[in-house]
Amino acid sequence: MSQSPSINRRIVLAARPHGEPADSDFRLETGEVPKPGPGQVLLRTVYLSLDPYMRGRMSDAPSYAEPVQVGQPMVGGTVTRVVASNHPDFPVGEWVLAQSGWQDYALSDGAGLLRLGAKPQHPSYSLGVLGMPGFTGYMGLLDIGKPKAGETVVVAAASGAVGAVVGQIAKIHGCKVVGIAGGADKCRYVVDELGFDDCLDHKLPDLAGRLARAVPQGIDVYFENVGGAVFDAVLPLLNPRARVPVCGLISAYNATSQPEGPDRLALLMRTILTKRLTFQGFIIFNEYAHRYGEFRDAMEGLIQQGRIKYREDVVEGLENAPRGLMGLLKGENAGKRIVRVGPDEQPAA
Amino acid sequence: MSQSPSINRRIVLAARPHGEPADSDFRLETGEVPKPGPGQVLLRTVYLSLDPYMRGRMSDAPSYAEPVQVGQPMVGGTVTRVVASNHPDFPVGEWVLAQSGWQDYALSDGAGLLRLGAKPQHPSYSLGVLGMPGFTGYMGLLDIGKPKAGETVVVAAASGAVGAVVGQIAKIHGCKVVGIAGGADKCRYVVDELGFDDCLDHKLPDLAGRLARAVPQGIDVYFENVGGAVFDAVLPLLNPRARVPVCGLISAYNATSQPEGPDRLALLMRTILTKRLTFQGFIIFNEYAHRYGEFRDAMEGLIQQGRIKYREDVVEGLENAPRGLMGLLKGENAGKRIVRVGPDEQPAA
Repeated sequence: MSQSPSINRRIVLAARPHGEPADSDFRLETGEVPKPGPGQVLLRTVYLSLDPYMRGRMSDAPSYAEPVQVGQPMVGGTVTRVVASNHPDFPVGEWVLAQSGWQDYALSDGAGLLRLGAKPQHPSYSLGVLGMPGFTGYMGLLDIGKPKAGETVVVAAASGAVGAVVGQIAKIHGCKVVGIAGGADKCRYVVDELGFDDCLDHKLPDLAGRLARAVPQGIDVYFENVGGAVFDAVLPLLNPRARVPVCGLISAYNATSQPEGPDRLALLMRTILTKRLTFQGFIIFNEYAHRYGEFRDAMEGLIQQGRIKYREDVVEGLENAPRGLMGLLKGENAGKRIVRVGPDEQPAA
Repeated sequence: MSQSPSINRRIVLAARPHGEPADSDFRLETGEVPKPGPGQVLLRTVYLSLDPYMRGRMSDAPSYAEPVQVGQPMVGGTVTRVVASNHPDFPVGEWVLAQSGWQDYALSDGAGLLRLGAKPQHPSYSLGVLGMPGFTGYMGLLDIGKPKAGETVVVAAASGAVGAVVGQIAKIHGCKVVGIAGGADKCRYVVDELGFDDCLDHKLPDLAGRLARAVPQGIDVYFENVGGAVFDAVLPLLNPRARVPVCGLISAYNATSQPEGPDRLALLMRTILTKRLTFQGFIIFNEYAHRYGEFRDAMEGLIQQGRIKYREDVVEGLENAPRGLMGLLKGENAGKRIVRVGPDEQPAA
């Protein structure tokens, strides 16, 4: 079933997953397309972003954001078009960046929307390199990681939407950049296309030993978006005064219990002390919303100059969004994963 | 045996301790008093500082500083007097802050010495509130902790040389300050003399529950110099965007193995992420040496105005320094622990 002008499909959270999400945790529902009231616009979803943080919203554990309620549509960033409008700032046909979630249509009073114009060159980029993931990589690296020319930067999930930006920006700042990714294809892409100095496949044995050999000068900035075995390999290699922006921990999102001991919490604290490390967690739109314009200007310029490469991994059809997210959490994606929910132009009724 | 003009007593590291240091890890040796060569001064120790970091120097585990070699004198900050001089900047009789270690006499070419003048008001203060511990508390709190008026600051080892400064400076900056200390006497001192809002005895049961009730608004700054059970009680109470200067981990210095599981390393990383915390380790004279003058001016002013209280815990005699350090690591001290090694004025030969 593809997008229709008269039916609103939505994917709701059917149950809270235990460990990895399963098909049964999602449910596709259909309903009427809502009508905009005074001051409202009706948005039609063209692209939906799939991102690792969505796994967190499916759980009711305390986190930085409210969980999705069971029975409610999954949340998510979207690139949409205005199909009906009672709002002077959003004429029909306009492209709009929204947070309308896993559904074909949504109403908005304009709050939190970002206008992308009538004919944006790459509308979907606003979900990736020009949107939340790109902004996260850019600000986390520069504002927390503070890379200096000649320093060594290590980036996990290097081929992902965030990691690819972190590594390329670090290269532009004169750093030696080593990526870590899952599989030979991803690693080739990271080195050959994105221009990292090196990339290690975490699926091969002895990541710790290979990483130690790849960073003979130690690690000055580790951009953390993975956790787990990758972090364990990185920790002993951190240089004095190294910086660790903590952006995500995808390897642990499906965890259902704490790993067995020994308890290394004190080891981490001791390493922070003796090496005078900085660990700083951040949530991009909480900490840096006021700098989004500055980021977007800089990144658009870098893309136009060909200095930042970007690759999308497009899942076709809203009904495939659940499988798309499950695969993303396993690292199956090649580049920024988005869902093509509907065509650029509204189909005839 | 007390200090003599003709004999140099020194306490050397006899063996590397396994767990808590024991008497047998130290050895008192005697030798000749050295003679200053060209450009050198001979320093006589009046006070020796005892500090928790010394436990680390007794081990050969990797740390931020070289370990003491077995057979060599224990390291330590000292307040000394010049007894012979071939150096124009250091006339005989001058008081000098040095790093001459656990011994009566030492030579120096002047590097790293700080002149305290001919008649300093409180020469020993340069080992505490005006020296490394005070500087550590002051800079760690203000530069990393960044306390804002109305925020809640929690300080472990609150009656110690560092903690007492942290809490008093936080009060001056308009914070609510809760200390944690070992025993009713120390807690009374922290509240009644130092002016903290509250102080919890970590030797009583249910520290976690009592701390939660003492900080109904959560914790914005936790000055970490203890680790262990105190940190475990603090971690769940940290507010979003809280700052944790990591200055010391005295509870773990005698540990011989990692605690049993579960492994909470990932839990700590997840908390850093979801609460957007900052953890930053620092070693005061590595990171902040260039700001010592600024600190000293500010702190001398605050002491003169009576806004900073300070208490010393004096161990009599160099031979008692080992027991003094062992007791310090168990929290037996009441205030900054120093050793009176020799009299203010040189005894007659």
